[in-house]
Amino acid sequence: MREAVVAAVHAELVEHGYAGLTVENVADRAGVHKTTVYRRWGTVDVLIADALDHTAETTWPVPDTGTIEGDLIAIATEVADTFTDPDHSSVPVAVVAAALQSDRALQAKRRFYAARQEAAARVVTRAVHRGELPPPADPVEVIRQTCAPLYHRVFISGEPVDRATAERAARAALAAARTGLL
Amino acid sequence: MREAVVAAVHAELVEHGYAGLTVENVADRAGVHKTTVYRRWGTVDVLIADALDHTAETTWPVPDTGTIEGDLIAIATEVADTFTDPDHSSVPVAVVAAALQSDRALQAKRRFYAARQEAAARVVTRAVHRGELPPPADPVEVIRQTCAPLYHRVFISGEPVDRATAERAARAALAAARTGLL
Repeated sequence: MREAVVAAVHAELVEHGYAGLTVENVADRAGVHKTTVYRRWGTVDVLIADALDHTAETTWPVPDTGTIEGDLIAIATEVADTFTDPDHSSVPVAVVAAALQSDRALQAKRRFYAARQEAAARVVTRAVHRGELPPPADPVEVIRQTCAPLYHRVFISGEPVDRATAERAARAALAAARTGLL
Repeated sequence: MREAVVAAVHAELVEHGYAGLTVENVADRAGVHKTTVYRRWGTVDVLIADALDHTAETTWPVPDTGTIEGDLIAIATEVADTFTDPDHSSVPVAVVAAALQSDRALQAKRRFYAARQEAAARVVTRAVHRGELPPPADPVEVIRQTCAPLYHRVFISGEPVDRATAERAARAALAAARTGLL
């Protein structure tokens, strides 16, 4: 049942967005009784949180291009591509919205990004082992710096993202990492 | 009347946050008839958008410490301080939440950040004139890079911000700007 409900949350978000998500529509689409969905999840924010927990359980393939520049550009490009495709962006947009309204969603979002940042930081520790970078005080900081300008455009300044902004963000993070600042 | 309503929006957000904001409470606090507030603003998201437009009309004092490093650290520190004080963070948090639900709020948020980023970029053009920096292709990009890691922590990864994270973000942006990458 959880699989069906999670899939329905994703499909409903793609079609109607966060503002149009209702427990009723998710139940209908999943073919599950409304009362069951209400009893187990309660609100749309909990549905979104559980869908995110479900995504967090899948393995994310960490880029391995052979260079730290290639890896960081791959990570940034994946973020930019997510937010240029409405089918892909509807879920992270809903997650940020839900986390601003629900503590359960906020905790799910924190766990999700902590796990992804930790996984992505492997590209930094690999680069340190290859002698490409001085060891950063915090390898995750290189990942934050790589992704932050893209999320800032999407959620704060409301400016567009594309592969050029992704490459620039990755190269800027790398420049800071090379000077030993991160 | 607008002044009273805008002040009431701020006060209500500080006390009850975005989830607790209602047109009724804003009207009560402002001493304005409910029907008038409904007719002129309609929803809480429009109230938030108008409060933001009002803030955008006030002049923001651009830091001028004498060095680009000092100026960028001042800008980043102001962002970090905003988000470590619940009295100050409730408004920007509500703005981001409202912009995810309302096109009117989204437009207000875009205008606000475009104006602030443009104003802040004056510290970059001044530094170029002083010979501290090579001329960036886009002076605003230095500002985005300075502030983005802080907003990313607050709204995306849900990690804390403080003056140390602010200084690091400013120094990393400056390192990228010095290499001519921005």
